[in-house]
Amino acid sequence: MAFSDMNGFAEMLKAAPGPDAAARAGAEARNAQLTKPAGSLGRLEEIAIWYAAWRGEARPRISHPQVAIFAGNHGVTARGVSAFPAEVTVQMVANFEHGGAAINQLARNAGAEMSVHALDLDRPTADFTESPAMSEADCVAALKSGWDAVNAETDLLVVGEMGIGNTTSAAAIAHALYGGSAADWVGRGTGVDDAGLKIKEEVCAAGVARHGGKAPLEILASLGGREVAAMAGAIARARHLRIPVILDGFICCAAAATLEKAVPGALDHCLAGHASAEAAHGALLGALGKEPLVSMGLRLGEGSGAGLVIPLVKGAVACLSGMATFAEAGVSDG
Amino acid sequence: MAFSDMNGFAEMLKAAPGPDAAARAGAEARNAQLTKPAGSLGRLEEIAIWYAAWRGEARPRISHPQVAIFAGNHGVTARGVSAFPAEVTVQMVANFEHGGAAINQLARNAGAEMSVHALDLDRPTADFTESPAMSEADCVAALKSGWDAVNAETDLLVVGEMGIGNTTSAAAIAHALYGGSAADWVGRGTGVDDAGLKIKEEVCAAGVARHGGKAPLEILASLGGREVAAMAGAIARARHLRIPVILDGFICCAAAATLEKAVPGALDHCLAGHASAEAAHGALLGALGKEPLVSMGLRLGEGSGAGLVIPLVKGAVACLSGMATFAEAGVSDG
Repeated sequence: MAFSDMNGFAEMLKAAPGPDAAARAGAEARNAQLTKPAGSLGRLEEIAIWYAAWRGEARPRISHPQVAIFAGNHGVTARGVSAFPAEVTVQMVANFEHGGAAINQLARNAGAEMSVHALDLDRPTADFTESPAMSEADCVAALKSGWDAVNAETDLLVVGEMGIGNTTSAAAIAHALYGGSAADWVGRGTGVDDAGLKIKEEVCAAGVARHGGKAPLEILASLGGREVAAMAGAIARARHLRIPVILDGFICCAAAATLEKAVPGALDHCLAGHASAEAAHGALLGALGKEPLVSMGLRLGEGSGAGLVIPLVKGAVACLSGMATFAEAGVSDG
Repeated sequence: MAFSDMNGFAEMLKAAPGPDAAARAGAEARNAQLTKPAGSLGRLEEIAIWYAAWRGEARPRISHPQVAIFAGNHGVTARGVSAFPAEVTVQMVANFEHGGAAINQLARNAGAEMSVHALDLDRPTADFTESPAMSEADCVAALKSGWDAVNAETDLLVVGEMGIGNTTSAAAIAHALYGGSAADWVGRGTGVDDAGLKIKEEVCAAGVARHGGKAPLEILASLGGREVAAMAGAIARARHLRIPVILDGFICCAAAATLEKAVPGALDHCLAGHASAEAAHGALLGALGKEPLVSMGLRLGEGSGAGLVIPLVKGAVACLSGMATFAEAGVSDG
């Protein structure tokens, strides 16, 4: 067992390994000899070298990506923060299991294994405007669910979520971590109307008024959901295994942000997959210092934006590791 | 034989089929019932519906993408417009044939067939500052090379190029088609220095001074190269077969632009794959009214940017055709 309480989890985060400097240097040297004008693959070159450093191999391959989806229910849905009823969470878990959701198609498209983890759906978290959403024990259990969900043989991880109400949870986390006003962090999620948006703002503000002064991992427990904590646990486990991660949208990034605030640099093994249409995702990515790979107006969650771009990361790494050098190909180097 | 001269090619362009309205309506209706909040897949939804309309199927699949690469040599290289010697064209063709180039890795990553077409490399086009780059017969032969290169069984096409000197050709075409000054359209290509950039600008201006007033397809013959005309021919053939095309960077878009200027709407079956780092690509995409899928700083050509994003289009179509509906999955529709 890797940790047994929140302090233990925080210690694991602090002890996480970094990238491999020798592998990075090897990848940079190889990249400079490939049959293309210097720098002409743009950001693909940076991504491939970053990936090589994390994997500790100058010429890595991506052959086993994983998409892990976590689902949880939120007590705060009783406040009317979502356009969909809370039963949709368990219905969508069945849809994931039967292969009918967007992420099923996108994971298959990317050649990724997909796992689905329903977390105590019949036991929603508490309404965070009244008490912490999770006890420490509940949060630790959720972190472990994420930690244990990562396949150690995986070489690229996407974490996604399903949880009616969880954009409100994510907005409250972001507001607590980064300040501003509730309105800065609240958006329409799956599609609430103006009245719903106003309720989300009030709920978010009330949650932060109650829990905002806490430490980052306490904020995760107090304002998060089980699926949010599980994503954080999976991202932390991937770091320990030196598995690069593609971050998804607003909720995934809010989960990730609690790690970065707890231990700066905790997300150095993570790329931002996409810029979501959820209003505050851009600000959250900015706070994390991450530039998204694509911006295609997705706002679905489920790991869909990150799953979509797995092939871009695979393509970057395939170029680094598969291309011929000028010498091998007999091509004149300008 | 589909056409035997430039007038015949122009007639073929005008007679090209359009998208299927019934398939489009069917895809839109299906999209509205899928298990996701309305619009939450953002641009993926538009792409999938567009694709369905062109293929004439409300629930299409992409199972056989093709990447066709054309290579040609340019007389204008004698002017010193490139950072690489002209021999690199034939060397890179060998590299494509042996699987060592970036596009080989990206085509494999996308599950695409790749074909390479070297066009009279020992017979460079004429220096367009002195005479038309190609005679009508040469241009028709190059258009046919592209036309014939498209596999009729393909369901998504990328066209790419290799040709030392061809950013100068593309800049001259864009300048002739869209006006402005030579400096607006010239960039560093594979990496010329300031002196080289100045030469490119002078050569581009001289070419347009000589040929700028001609009709769009004559501009293609006068300022293009064989690989540029072949890309235009392949894009036109794809339109006849209702095969959607992902456009690559500056040179591909300059080739495509001659079709659009000749027959407005000729590129309605084409998506812009990426925004290149080549300076004028953004302006050219703007002139074509195309918004790129990604912007990752690539400036390699070879169809690399378009090949990179084939999986994004495949993912979009996989969602439309593979997802369950609310009714099928028993999910409550908000």
